[in-house]
Amino acid sequence: MAKDIVKPKTLSGFMELSPNDQILFNKIKDSIRRNFELSGFLPLDTPTIESAEVLLAKAGGETEKQVYQITKGDNNLCLIFDLTVPLAKYVASRENELAFPFRRYQIAKVYRGERAQKGRFREFYQCDIDIIGRDKLSIECDAEVPSTIYRIFKELNIGDFTIYINNRKLFSGLLEELNITDKKVEVLRTIDKLDKVGQENVVSMLLEIGVSNEKINKILSFISITGSNEEQLKKIEKLGIKNEIFLTGLDELKSVLKDMENFGVPKQNFQLKLSIARGLDYYTGTIYETFLNKNKEFGSISSGGRYDNLAENYTDKKLPGVGMSIGLTRLFDFIKEKGLIQSQQNSISKIMVLPMTDNKSACIDVVAQLRKAGIASEINFEDTKFKNKLNYANKLGIPYVIFIGDEELSSNALTIKNMITGEQDKLTVNQIIDKLS
Amino acid sequence: MAKDIVKPKTLSGFMELSPNDQILFNKIKDSIRRNFELSGFLPLDTPTIESAEVLLAKAGGETEKQVYQITKGDNNLCLIFDLTVPLAKYVASRENELAFPFRRYQIAKVYRGERAQKGRFREFYQCDIDIIGRDKLSIECDAEVPSTIYRIFKELNIGDFTIYINNRKLFSGLLEELNITDKKVEVLRTIDKLDKVGQENVVSMLLEIGVSNEKINKILSFISITGSNEEQLKKIEKLGIKNEIFLTGLDELKSVLKDMENFGVPKQNFQLKLSIARGLDYYTGTIYETFLNKNKEFGSISSGGRYDNLAENYTDKKLPGVGMSIGLTRLFDFIKEKGLIQSQQNSISKIMVLPMTDNKSACIDVVAQLRKAGIASEINFEDTKFKNKLNYANKLGIPYVIFIGDEELSSNALTIKNMITGEQDKLTVNQIIDKLS
Repeated sequence: MAKDIVKPKTLSGFMELSPNDQILFNKIKDSIRRNFELSGFLPLDTPTIESAEVLLAKAGGETEKQVYQITKGDNNLCLIFDLTVPLAKYVASRENELAFPFRRYQIAKVYRGERAQKGRFREFYQCDIDIIGRDKLSIECDAEVPSTIYRIFKELNIGDFTIYINNRKLFSGLLEELNITDKKVEVLRTIDKLDKVGQENVVSMLLEIGVSNEKINKILSFISITGSNEEQLKKIEKLGIKNEIFLTGLDELKSVLKDMENFGVPKQNFQLKLSIARGLDYYTGTIYETFLNKNKEFGSISSGGRYDNLAENYTDKKLPGVGMSIGLTRLFDFIKEKGLIQSQQNSISKIMVLPMTDNKSACIDVVAQLRKAGIASEINFEDTKFKNKLNYANKLGIPYVIFIGDEELSSNALTIKNMITGEQDKLTVNQIIDKLS
Repeated sequence: MAKDIVKPKTLSGFMELSPNDQILFNKIKDSIRRNFELSGFLPLDTPTIESAEVLLAKAGGETEKQVYQITKGDNNLCLIFDLTVPLAKYVASRENELAFPFRRYQIAKVYRGERAQKGRFREFYQCDIDIIGRDKLSIECDAEVPSTIYRIFKELNIGDFTIYINNRKLFSGLLEELNITDKKVEVLRTIDKLDKVGQENVVSMLLEIGVSNEKINKILSFISITGSNEEQLKKIEKLGIKNEIFLTGLDELKSVLKDMENFGVPKQNFQLKLSIARGLDYYTGTIYETFLNKNKEFGSISSGGRYDNLAENYTDKKLPGVGMSIGLTRLFDFIKEKGLIQSQQNSISKIMVLPMTDNKSACIDVVAQLRKAGIASEINFEDTKFKNKLNYANKLGIPYVIFIGDEELSSNALTIKNMITGEQDKLTVNQIIDKLS
């Protein structure tokens, strides 16, 4: 029967890794999970598909355009585009059974039909942690979340990084003090573009909105405050702003910066930065962005913040929270390409057993013993030349090969070869297990 | 601003677990992964979305109806409905870079829009292992795959189980011997229904197809052969069938049954069973089904088999393989409901730190030290009554609570309470770390 061959292509914008890159990717994912769990976050695994009504309850125009919609019978379904909306749904629907503060992590793929381009993915892993309170949530959580993120990037060892911290109440308070709260959203949106379009453009945009030159100067000089955290705090206090929201934000900020150190984050890894804004409506207090010091062009490798109300679309209960997120797929793509991290492992197996005898049962028994002892191993019975089998072990980067011939079996001493150094040894199975455990 | 509240519901057919069930689910998933890796299988993580052209290259009518189709611009996309088609695509497109035999595992969610009913899921985890050869693959792999599955169910400890093994060449050979190869597909399909509809119905269906009474008796008496594996093999040999395909299948079967023992699978955990058929076209040699001895009503908890050609829709290269799969979501749902497994853990944290002093920094330092030592722990700063905090720890099942008051800080001896026994101790942080590590 003649078959039509379909070209086996993978969609653009979807990451599909070689086995050795996948091993590396999983190692990073495992490290993120381990550190989330070390801070007591509970695992969640919500569905990838939700009803459009639930998923798009809050979404605006831009998000909605990117959402993957699904046709299935009469149902209007969508693929999740982040892990926050599913969390809101989850917490709202189980509010009576959960213990608050509810600390959860979720590491899962989400979907956005963005224009495919280098470094952009339509399917990507988000790695989220959030602590949700009922009615209230202590400010110490605002330091605990970034301290967990700190441990991850420290462990990943992909270069020096800084977690930038701000509090949106400061800027809101400043705008109140300057009497321009009616233009707050537009001003915030404009300031948020500072890094992208430059100060000159921001000034003319603010003028257009109708902010006076004097006020623009006050805003710009405020967000341009630099120095160590202590120096910045002093400069802020010196401004003598008496606005209540501003002062609340300042108190929170001081508390978070102090607690970061207590949580073990070294001073060089976090910094107050008044110019970060992080979107518009959602965040209401502390906000975070994280940058690789030598690769700022990538943008933030982990962001998040404090919000007043997680699930206002699903419940009238007040559920404040604080969270951060790592976009793992894009980050992996970047650090791999920049050489900030290297695959060191092509194989899961530590040992390949090569039978050179007709007594296959004895060879299988060896691999069974190795596995029982927890040593990942494989056995190769393929009917190819000896050289091909060694090439196979080399290609996979399997560090040890055991040759088993009749002589080895009768003397109970197997030949084990270190494939990196070339060194050979004659050892019993138990000695091999001791050596590699 | 008044908000419209959307009822936060989860779609039917989609599993969404409570945190304690999720911890248990992840434990099982981790065990599966660990055992897959112990046998040297390489991880893959292919996209959840594929182009319809690629994904449905092989699919027949029934499958195609169940597939979730996605509308996105002009593209005709689908959600994956199994992990085999993505594997075929993967191997076909990377045939030149992979080392063969290619051993891969994938644990991922797949999607089928089946009618929602109890125990049926539209989104479910498949846990697959396959070994793929180029042109050929040694028969020892056919024992290695189920031996890996054996270790998993042994470790999960959900009751006695049996891996049933057959080889499709036997039945094909028998039909050839009986000269009814023209009706092979119909006969196979009918025999496959034996357990569901009973022998009487199968006989009348076979008569309808046009198989003679004499041949029906031969077929039925063949698949009714029972006894120990050795007894069954003797009975099969006694039939004196000389058909070549039959004899090849018999040789393979003998080899697999012998190797199962060598791979360390106890005799009571695997059994030759001539009546299992496993679908129609795909499998060409060894086939497997796995049953919980005391819960046969569930059906097979892990199935699979040997196939001649993984990727015939994507390449003209011959890629034979052997694999098995565990449908984890459905299995979890069943063993949880039957009480075959219990959640033992409501919490990831081993310790909750309860500050009872204004020196919050010292308390945070304690939790930071615990985490640095690898002990999952949390700290509770919430402004609630002491009793509420203890209730919180109890509800989460956190096994230890540390109270830190001013006295504890000045004496450098923290009060640690075992929440299960009620026992209290006064220990330094380092002593606590030693105790719990």
